[in-house]
Amino acid sequence: MAGSSFGTIFQISTWGESHGAALGVVVDGCPAGLPLEAADIQAYLDRRKPGSSAITTQRRETDQVELLSGIFDGRTTGTPISMMIRNTSQRSADYGNLADCYRPGHADYTFDAKYGFRDYRGGGRSSGRETAGRVAGGAVAAKLLREFGITLAAYTTAIGPVEIDRSRFDLQTARMTPTGMPDPDASAAAEAYLEDCMRHYDSAGGVIECVIDGVPAGLGDPVFEKLDANLSKALMSIGAVKAVEIGDGTAVAVRQGSQNNDPFHMEAGQVVKTSNHAGGILGGISDASPIVLRAYVKPTPSIFSPQRTVNRQGEDIELSIKGRHDPVIVPRAVVVVETMAALTIADALLLNASARLDNLQKIYGR
Amino acid sequence: MAGSSFGTIFQISTWGESHGAALGVVVDGCPAGLPLEAADIQAYLDRRKPGSSAITTQRRETDQVELLSGIFDGRTTGTPISMMIRNTSQRSADYGNLADCYRPGHADYTFDAKYGFRDYRGGGRSSGRETAGRVAGGAVAAKLLREFGITLAAYTTAIGPVEIDRSRFDLQTARMTPTGMPDPDASAAAEAYLEDCMRHYDSAGGVIECVIDGVPAGLGDPVFEKLDANLSKALMSIGAVKAVEIGDGTAVAVRQGSQNNDPFHMEAGQVVKTSNHAGGILGGISDASPIVLRAYVKPTPSIFSPQRTVNRQGEDIELSIKGRHDPVIVPRAVVVVETMAALTIADALLLNASARLDNLQKIYGR
Amino acid sequence: MAGSSFGTIFQISTWGESHGAALGVVVDGCPAGLPLEAADIQAYLDRRKPGSSAITTQRRETDQVELLSGIFDGRTTGTPISMMIRNTSQRSADYGNLADCYRPGHADYTFDAKYGFRDYRGGGRSSGRETAGRVAGGAVAAKLLREFGITLAAYTTAIGPVEIDRSRFDLQTARMTPTGMPDPDASAAAEAYLEDCMRHYDSAGGVIECVIDGVPAGLGDPVFEKLDANLSKALMSIGAVKAVEIGDGTAVAVRQGSQNNDPFHMEAGQVVKTSNHAGGILGGISDASPIVLRAYVKPTPSIFSPQRTVNRQGEDIELSIKGRHDPVIVPRAVVVVETMAALTIADALLLNASARLDNLQKIYGR
Amino acid sequence: MAGSSFGTIFQISTWGESHGAALGVVVDGCPAGLPLEAADIQAYLDRRKPGSSAITTQRRETDQVELLSGIFDGRTTGTPISMMIRNTSQRSADYGNLADCYRPGHADYTFDAKYGFRDYRGGGRSSGRETAGRVAGGAVAAKLLREFGITLAAYTTAIGPVEIDRSRFDLQTARMTPTGMPDPDASAAAEAYLEDCMRHYDSAGGVIECVIDGVPAGLGDPVFEKLDANLSKALMSIGAVKAVEIGDGTAVAVRQGSQNNDPFHMEAGQVVKTSNHAGGILGGISDASPIVLRAYVKPTPSIFSPQRTVNRQGEDIELSIKGRHDPVIVPRAVVVVETMAALTIADALLLNASARLDNLQKIYGR
Repeated sequence: MAGSSFGTIFQISTWGESHGAALGVVVDGCPAGLPLEAADIQAYLDRRKPGSSAITTQRRETDQVELLSGIFDGRTTGTPISMMIRNTSQRSADYGNLADCYRPGHADYTFDAKYGFRDYRGGGRSSGRETAGRVAGGAVAAKLLREFGITLAAYTTAIGPVEIDRSRFDLQTARMTPTGMPDPDASAAAEAYLEDCMRHYDSAGGVIECVIDGVPAGLGDPVFEKLDANLSKALMSIGAVKAVEIGDGTAVAVRQGSQNNDPFHMEAGQVVKTSNHAGGILGGISDASPIVLRAYVKPTPSIFSPQRTVNRQGEDIELSIKGRHDPVIVPRAVVVVETMAALTIADALLLNASARLDNLQKIYGR
Repeated sequence: MAGSSFGTIFQISTWGESHGAALGVVVDGCPAGLPLEAADIQAYLDRRKPGSSAITTQRRETDQVELLSGIFDGRTTGTPISMMIRNTSQRSADYGNLADCYRPGHADYTFDAKYGFRDYRGGGRSSGRETAGRVAGGAVAAKLLREFGITLAAYTTAIGPVEIDRSRFDLQTARMTPTGMPDPDASAAAEAYLEDCMRHYDSAGGVIECVIDGVPAGLGDPVFEKLDANLSKALMSIGAVKAVEIGDGTAVAVRQGSQNNDPFHMEAGQVVKTSNHAGGILGGISDASPIVLRAYVKPTPSIFSPQRTVNRQGEDIELSIKGRHDPVIVPRAVVVVETMAALTIADALLLNASARLDNLQKIYGR
Repeated sequence: MAGSSFGTIFQISTWGESHGAALGVVVDGCPAGLPLEAADIQAYLDRRKPGSSAITTQRRETDQVELLSGIFDGRTTGTPISMMIRNTSQRSADYGNLADCYRPGHADYTFDAKYGFRDYRGGGRSSGRETAGRVAGGAVAAKLLREFGITLAAYTTAIGPVEIDRSRFDLQTARMTPTGMPDPDASAAAEAYLEDCMRHYDSAGGVIECVIDGVPAGLGDPVFEKLDANLSKALMSIGAVKAVEIGDGTAVAVRQGSQNNDPFHMEAGQVVKTSNHAGGILGGISDASPIVLRAYVKPTPSIFSPQRTVNRQGEDIELSIKGRHDPVIVPRAVVVVETMAALTIADALLLNASARLDNLQKIYGR
Repeated sequence: MAGSSFGTIFQISTWGESHGAALGVVVDGCPAGLPLEAADIQAYLDRRKPGSSAITTQRRETDQVELLSGIFDGRTTGTPISMMIRNTSQRSADYGNLADCYRPGHADYTFDAKYGFRDYRGGGRSSGRETAGRVAGGAVAAKLLREFGITLAAYTTAIGPVEIDRSRFDLQTARMTPTGMPDPDASAAAEAYLEDCMRHYDSAGGVIECVIDGVPAGLGDPVFEKLDANLSKALMSIGAVKAVEIGDGTAVAVRQGSQNNDPFHMEAGQVVKTSNHAGGILGGISDASPIVLRAYVKPTPSIFSPQRTVNRQGEDIELSIKGRHDPVIVPRAVVVVETMAALTIADALLLNASARLDNLQKIYGR
């Protein structure tokens, strides 16, 4: 499969560069009959938009989605849903001086090494703008999942050294703070930290968590298509993510089995776990507990202090980056994590439909 | 793609259960002309074998590979390479009492939820024995990569709280210690820790690192098929892995951009990086620095102390696990991490061959 | 893989309905460095356009392609090439009366059976307009193939009972006749036949042949991904095609081996065949002879004479189709056959690049 | 996807060469809960076996299947079903003289062109023995389909110039005649024809038809994954097949729309067609009528009369083939056609399960 598609049955294919005419996504394999309108998509794209706070880029990205196919009478028809977002804010002059040099922490050098040349305007295909297509596609997946009682919530748990206090957790807050943190105090502290970074022409990283509720037991496959393996790929495919955790993640390495195993017990006739160190997945298959994921995001590589690097001619140079750059990627990546998770779960939901003879009998009536 | 295949061009499909007649793998898409013999595979399977130390299961798994197709005159023919390992050590009586109950930390419950029933003998398809097929397939990938100067080395960096001291790092040591640690002192400490775990009927987790040298710049694709995304899936698809890191991994979240960016400079006419926080991958594409991965492994869920759980009838019960179980999964998973990484890199190497017009011109002579 | 994508490495994904806002295609996996501009695509779309003759629909489809991504400085970048064609000629009133009934020979009933409802405007996704995306994508493939000396030529060999006389074959003629026939006399006879069909409110079928020259030996794979198997799928996926032949096709069934085998001999140091009954493919792999394909196309199902059918309410009714319909699909399908073949060969060309160790050594320099 | 796999969800991967140790297949994606035992598979393999008549090879192929995984308590577990057939009748000496020359009509030359060398023993991977894996895998698909009332029947309709008389059609007869013809008189005539071919050191081709009953409306997808497109690929992937027809096939090209359209009408509350020129598929989607396919098979290329060809050294030579070869491929290919069709329908059945929101609601209970 070519590199711009994700998913086996519920599949998206994204396209577009930072400074091209437009970006977009084709969603194929979405079941017929799902109520869907542009507003469902726009709501997710709006969460990806830079805010009006001091800590985000000044670039004006309105990112209005245009729904081009696959919907009739307000419902999906089962055929490809094509969505496009026109680029309206390309100021190529900002980037012209970067045509020739390899920015540290960016994909300039590796694109040239792979393809022989590259669309250097604003990072081209390696720009964070590429995620607009993912978010639009993932918004469809999220809408589908809600039909089955599955909901996703991503939020920021750390920016640089500032971590949230889980006793103050409030998801609504995360939708309002410029940091995406569900804790207003931590968010304020993080904003102060970011302003300090900016003053020193520097940038910050952070951590995004995503919790998925309502996933029925049985999604995901043994061996290579484990649900956590696909979620891991989904999150690690987001630029700047350098580590992914499921459940308790790295912490399990220092535990003993007696501490880490989640005992099962019966509750209201259901098998449930009394703890959730596993993060909702056992043997690669969902166990009906909440699925818990974490993505660790590196600091924005575009910093305004001078950096040592080389140019295409193979000369050592000093680079000063100009233009518009967020001091931290994390807040705008929250919705990307959430929608990538949604795409993964939606695909697993569809694939699992044919995993059992009795499932098929329910459909085909034998 | 069904759940038991991995890779797009260089593709493996594994099959087999812990207590079935045999396990195996079909490797499809391996280029023709690669010298290959059973000994190349056996060397990797032997690394997966339980050792003779106190800290591994007493189960005797000789795991002799049988090469059934795809080789002629000592070289691969370009057609599928089928390999089989007969199961010789099934003592089903050990597991019979588990047919009916859901072991904490295992996939018993989720398999039943997904499929309606399961092959409960020794965990069936969810057993660690499933990895024998991966290792056999990955051994072919590793052989192919060596033809291009690409080498992989995985080893244990931590077991429970015991970490290696990198100043004592010696890869040959890692191949000899029962822990897979490249530091004999840490290994001895880890063995002591594991014996203590066993005395308390408990188990331990740990960390496996893999370094891949010699990867040319340009492997991997932008967006979804990023090399790190696929490596992350590869490692997370190994049972018991709960977190994956690329390069500095989780540590990047607390860094500033000026600390985390790897400056480029020229060295002997080559573009190189003066540091490698990124772990050899930028924008999802290899940058010719060593690729560095880490997998965090949970403690063996099979512990001998009594545990609370439920049975298939929906009753709360107390479970006492018997049988043969390693107190730690890590040492035997080292070669699994290494071969899964090899499979991922081999596939990227093949996919990249057609990424540029001038590559194709080298082959087709225009 | 979802149903709107074609190809493994060189992959297209099409989208769009007959009467939606637009149709389009995303080409992923095209090698970087290919010179490409909108005119390359437009030339192929123009061949799909209805002509000005009496035998084509009056619908005005200008089908102007918009290139949205994947091109920089006049060359492909290796990232997805998105192309869009706005629909400008929707006259939905023409089709409104068909919302409720199942046209014989059309997909109305099967879409409803599959999806529960359908976009009935002009056939929606099952309309022949869907092929615009294929043609745009296939134009890129054809451009790539020309770089390697591979050229494709499709043309009409029969319409209804009128067959071409191969002694008058002239490919340039085929590009000028309204029938797509490479024989002006046969074309005139076919036009007369079609006008007769139209007078009787009826329609006609026909045969399209495609010859592919310059394909190097070695493309295609043994077993399931045989080159002829994929070409067969490519052609049969075009609506209205009901039979596909490779080489001498159905005629081989009545031959004896001594008549059907193509002897090899040496010519100017090359292995060549003295005949080409096989149509350029042996064992699923190209043999460097011209590849010869034939697609048999059914008569346009939309005819203006009254037909018996049923409606969505399950009532027997009589249907009279109005609107704009070609009396024969064949002439406009010629370029669709040619571009589908181009897509198949391009994908095989790319896949074959990594089939041999020495191919890879040419690229990676070992 | 590598070349030895077929199907998206219900997927088989075959392996093995004519004169290797064994051949086999891995079936992945078969739903859990299907009753399955070795006898189900063996019955199909036995139909592929050479008979005891004068018109088949003397090679003794017992082809006993060994079921290695994926079955527990007599039912499929949802995990890969691995099946192996040991090669017991390799007489390599028969083929040794062919190591060096390119047999006309065979894949010797194209394998060498593709891979640089080949396993020349008995044709290696390009031998008809490769189909044993398909038949074993397809037997599982056929068993699954029977659970849903879907049955397949393939048979010979022509050998050389001898065609069946459909007024004498009897499917049971087809299972008993050495030709696979459902008409005893035609079969006797075909045997006489074949004996005549053999006397002249020549061989014959023929036609195989397959009818699939009970397919519910709605299987298959619009555009590229049309059911007929996949069936066409399935049949054309069988070595020696040179043309494929759906429904009335090539005959439609000379029809008018009024003759070729199948009128719908209501019958016992069901939408049915009064004729079936379309062969059970409209717009790529099944319409609940019988699906009708035809494969045209070339004469066996291995003939015993001397032939002109070239050797690996690029010299013109005369070749005399020895060994064991059927004078016609058709009778033994009947079950291959049937099982390839079964695999295609089974995959479409599984894929269609998630095509509609209400299907998923039946499974997930919302």
